Amino acid sequence: MLPSKYKLRSLLAGTLTLSLALSSFSALAAEKVYRLKLAETWGPNTPILGDATKNMAKLAEEMSNGRLQIRIDSANKHKAPLGVFDMVKSGQYDLGHSSSYYWKGKVPNTLYFSSMPFGMVPAEQYAWFYRGGGMELMEKVYSPHNLLSFPGGNSDIQMGGWFKKEINSIEDLKGLKIRIPGFAGEVMAKVGAKPTNIAPGELYTSLERGTIDALEWVGPAFDLRMGFQKIAPYYYTAWHEPGSETQFLVNKKKWESLPHDLQSILETAFRVTAFDMYTQSVDANANSWSTMSAEYPDIKVRDFPPEVLQAMKAATTELLEDQANSDALAKEIIQSQEQYLAKVRAWTDISSKAYLDTSK
Amino acid sequence: MLPSKYKLRSLLAGTLTLSLALSSFSALAAEKVYRLKLAETWGPNTPILGDATKNMAKLAEEMSNGRLQIRIDSANKHKAPLGVFDMVKSGQYDLGHSSSYYWKGKVPNTLYFSSMPFGMVPAEQYAWFYRGGGMELMEKVYSPHNLLSFPGGNSDIQMGGWFKKEINSIEDLKGLKIRIPGFAGEVMAKVGAKPTNIAPGELYTSLERGTIDALEWVGPAFDLRMGFQKIAPYYYTAWHEPGSETQFLVNKKKWESLPHDLQSILETAFRVTAFDMYTQSVDANANSWSTMSAEYPDIKVRDFPPEVLQAMKAATTELLEDQANSDALAKEIIQSQEQYLAKVRAWTDISSKAYLDTSK
Repeated sequence: MLPSKYKLRSLLAGTLTLSLALSSFSALAAEKVYRLKLAETWGPNTPILGDATKNMAKLAEEMSNGRLQIRIDSANKHKAPLGVFDMVKSGQYDLGHSSSYYWKGKVPNTLYFSSMPFGMVPAEQYAWFYRGGGMELMEKVYSPHNLLSFPGGNSDIQMGGWFKKEINSIEDLKGLKIRIPGFAGEVMAKVGAKPTNIAPGELYTSLERGTIDALEWVGPAFDLRMGFQKIAPYYYTAWHEPGSETQFLVNKKKWESLPHDLQSILETAFRVTAFDMYTQSVDANANSWSTMSAEYPDIKVRDFPPEVLQAMKAATTELLEDQANSDALAKEIIQSQEQYLAKVRAWTDISSKAYLDTSK
Repeated sequence: MLPSKYKLRSLLAGTLTLSLALSSFSALAAEKVYRLKLAETWGPNTPILGDATKNMAKLAEEMSNGRLQIRIDSANKHKAPLGVFDMVKSGQYDLGHSSSYYWKGKVPNTLYFSSMPFGMVPAEQYAWFYRGGGMELMEKVYSPHNLLSFPGGNSDIQMGGWFKKEINSIEDLKGLKIRIPGFAGEVMAKVGAKPTNIAPGELYTSLERGTIDALEWVGPAFDLRMGFQKIAPYYYTAWHEPGSETQFLVNKKKWESLPHDLQSILETAFRVTAFDMYTQSVDANANSWSTMSAEYPDIKVRDFPPEVLQAMKAATTELLEDQANSDALAKEIIQSQEQYLAKVRAWTDISSKAYLDTSK
């Protein structure tokens, strides 16, 4: 507790003497302004993702009464959207906002803290992070790199993507050219598709001209303005990113230099911003899907056939087994997620799923 | 922004004179300790609900560096578990933690801010509160009573309850004695059941002896220790409280007396505590359901038959129409919830529901 009671008493007693002059040193220390620089992976004014960093900075400034001042540099400024990990690790930036799975080429075990194919939905994953050991495992992965990582906002369940032709069997996936990066791309390759990565600005033209046959992007909130619905009528439901969480990264040395109350303010600002971004994503997806389904009534929402889903699930399991066998920490994380998912999904099935299935 | 830059400069210049003595007045004002009293509806050490108030108070104290000190009085202390609304309104307490639907006998429109039969699940309802106009409507209801109300933590989807006999048709509900209070009880009465309210301590014996045939309580996390599974094997899935949100209440005059940074800290502590309680509830339900289903393998999880659900839904709609016709603000809230639910559920259906249905 602060010694302010004592100071207040001596003030009221009218002793504006040396004791006050000394006490004001600590008051001034408590009012020191900390200026932090944040690098985000996103371009300037990116909706939802960019709102999260702005909301976090505003909240941290308000709660600290101006003692925390956070400058946000978007990708156009720092020119290294996928360099956020390194820039925060080195101390070039104090904070970052990005996604953990972007670093899997550098630190393979960062893969597990965004979203996994056939993995947890957002409510389940937040329970795993905060109550099921996820935060501790994330610390094990990031701590050796002079970094702290916190959940940074969920973009909600991602759709399976836009397809020009209907997928009726595993045969229909053979040779299918699909834009799907990362681990999910490896899964797709294992079931016979040809995953590619294409710059966002070229996606529409690539799909239109047949350079690719399909692509995954995010969900209605991000997909609507991309216009894919005009050229690929099949909108497949989720399998590969059922709860995509972003991350706040913090330089550990910088973190340790902050007073305890500002650490608490910052950590709380991260946490509430993460939840808020999830809420915003749900709302934005609902609004965009409402617009999209009204303006483009020919969109055909499809689930992948059970045969295809089983093949993708088997491929996911195989890839994860390989990773678990090659690294002890990978094994620990994969097992933690599998065990938590088995437990929490049994509950989700008799609560959310049963309600959504029956309450129509 | 604080004038701390100026003060620091004059300190460095060594001018420990009148200017410093004056500036320390403002520093001392900024360090004033605010002691707030919170009354909660729950008994002492109630899991999850009681954790929420303790977590909120701890977080507010940490972030404010001790300037916010919140004393929590449980029901054993203030003796008025359902008097929280009045005690915070009058200023006897500064803060409260309770559930909005407890006040429907006093202010009917408070009903809509906990959870409604066939209403929104937690993610949908948070989106409605924070993005869909819910907070503004809640303010319209509480503001005339010198109160602010904030979401105070979600106890997750509630189960439909424990039944001694299987419900196969609407006939099976006729005359059924069921403990189910509040609005959901009115719905049950409309479809022919006989709802009653019974004190928690007498529930087990009442069910065992046949004073009642069925009851709803909460979900596995709260139900397990009550032991209902030993005497009523049918565990029905959700319909009446799909996303039960608690509330933080604040005396408006007291709120207005707080400095802006402490208001921001308090509001953020409420918000993050609400989300955290939801996460904790998901985890606790998953753990308790895992224990319960392993130790009591004879529990029979059942959905109500479509015929029964349709009758309960029709009864809900009728009751809401009556309420909408009798009060303009009730109509505004009911319409806001119905419209938001229609929009957001269309998205939930093609995202969460599709994923949970297909990803097994």
